[in-house]
Amino acid sequence: MEGRATVSTPAALPYYVAFSQLLGLTLVAMTGAWLGLYRGGIAWESDLQFNVHPLCMAIGLIFLQGDALLVYRVFRNEAKRTTKVLHGMLHVSALTIALVGLVAVFDYHRKKGYADLYSLHSWCGILVFVLYFVQWLVGFSFFLFPGASFSLRSRYRASHIFFGATIFILSVGTALLGLKEALLFKLGRAKYSLFEPEGVLANVLGLLLACFGGVVLYILTRPDWKRPSQAEEQALSMDFKTLTEGDSPGSQ
Amino acid sequence: MEGRATVSTPAALPYYVAFSQLLGLTLVAMTGAWLGLYRGGIAWESDLQFNVHPLCMAIGLIFLQGDALLVYRVFRNEAKRTTKVLHGMLHVSALTIALVGLVAVFDYHRKKGYADLYSLHSWCGILVFVLYFVQWLVGFSFFLFPGASFSLRSRYRASHIFFGATIFILSVGTALLGLKEALLFKLGRAKYSLFEPEGVLANVLGLLLACFGGVVLYILTRPDWKRPSQAEEQALSMDFKTLTEGDSPGSQ
Repeated sequence: MEGRATVSTPAALPYYVAFSQLLGLTLVAMTGAWLGLYRGGIAWESDLQFNVHPLCMAIGLIFLQGDALLVYRVFRNEAKRTTKVLHGMLHVSALTIALVGLVAVFDYHRKKGYADLYSLHSWCGILVFVLYFVQWLVGFSFFLFPGASFSLRSRYRASHIFFGATIFILSVGTALLGLKEALLFKLGRAKYSLFEPEGVLANVLGLLLACFGGVVLYILTRPDWKRPSQAEEQALSMDFKTLTEGDSPGSQ
Repeated sequence: MEGRATVSTPAALPYYVAFSQLLGLTLVAMTGAWLGLYRGGIAWESDLQFNVHPLCMAIGLIFLQGDALLVYRVFRNEAKRTTKVLHGMLHVSALTIALVGLVAVFDYHRKKGYADLYSLHSWCGILVFVLYFVQWLVGFSFFLFPGASFSLRSRYRASHIFFGATIFILSVGTALLGLKEALLFKLGRAKYSLFEPEGVLANVLGLLLACFGGVVLYILTRPDWKRPSQAEEQALSMDFKTLTEGDSPGSQ
């Protein structure tokens, strides 16, 4: 706690966080169930290599990215360095797992002789990756490395939060497009419109994705659930010195 | 101005608003171009009736709904009653035009003997309609009708803004799913992956939709572009009395 007073946790926050985790874990499990029941499971060879793609994206770009956004709301009473490092590490994990998913689909396309990057899903996906990588680099430079002044960090903070939320929303939208694409490539309109079990399961998965996104954004944006100003500013003012020496600049 | 001091407009705001309008008008025009060039145009009969659906949704649920969200940011110096009534009227227009689009697609399905509500796009679409209608009713009851106390309005305000933004995001996501669906029903994977002109145009339209959503949310959420607290509270405190008598309760 570093001698800082404990910040009280809003009464309803833990329930919303628990609900978000329930949604997130369910959507990952349901992605696995969809791939297992209707797509033959997962492997790094044969046609099954494609299936690595949706599973990695559900875990990385949806669940872990969403959880990374919540770190400052959930760990309100943890030391700021812990929270900040956890935030960065969750994003690195999300990006790494998503990269495996990206390699899987490009490798699968190459082996099958399919074209790359022709669909709206793929265009949005590449946009997400570029933005996510740039956001991580800029965020790292501003908040974890020395050099950026306190006022520069304060000014960048709002942009960092906005673009973080936007990239997350775009990730959820891209996942919905991908799900729809995978469904229509296999079922076509004819089977899809007969309420085939796979179609219904995928629709429910799509709604779960949207709900997870909605609950994460609710927790993130609810004004009275924001980390109190002083704690937030202290967290943002931590620089490389504080990482190594365990000290932090005082509030403004 | 009702004797209220003029609130200064942030220097960059007009440029962002102009950019959002450029994006919005371009996406509506491009939807028209897509339907005209590749889908035979628009009519309330034959197969062309379907085309009423995407055009109405682009105008109503995307462009007008987006603009309705921006009213409090754009008209910072207008009388609060004007701003509030404009906000409500834009939403009514958006909902009405979207309803025409909804009737068009159900009527088209009925005539062609197609199933209804089997796809993720349709599930999300119905969700958007229900949420949008409820949000409008609750918003109207709290902010334009007498009865709700000042404190009740203040407490509801954050939820109104969050759900407004969420419904808008869900509308954009649903439009992307619909665009993808219309594309894959016609082109299939084979033609889509050959970078057919219609596919490329629809992809660009999809990116435009996402960009319009992003710019609207940026303008809406940028902290220093919020309507100043006093003006905002006055706007929210307007009740039926102020609508009819041209008076408003003092700020708290």
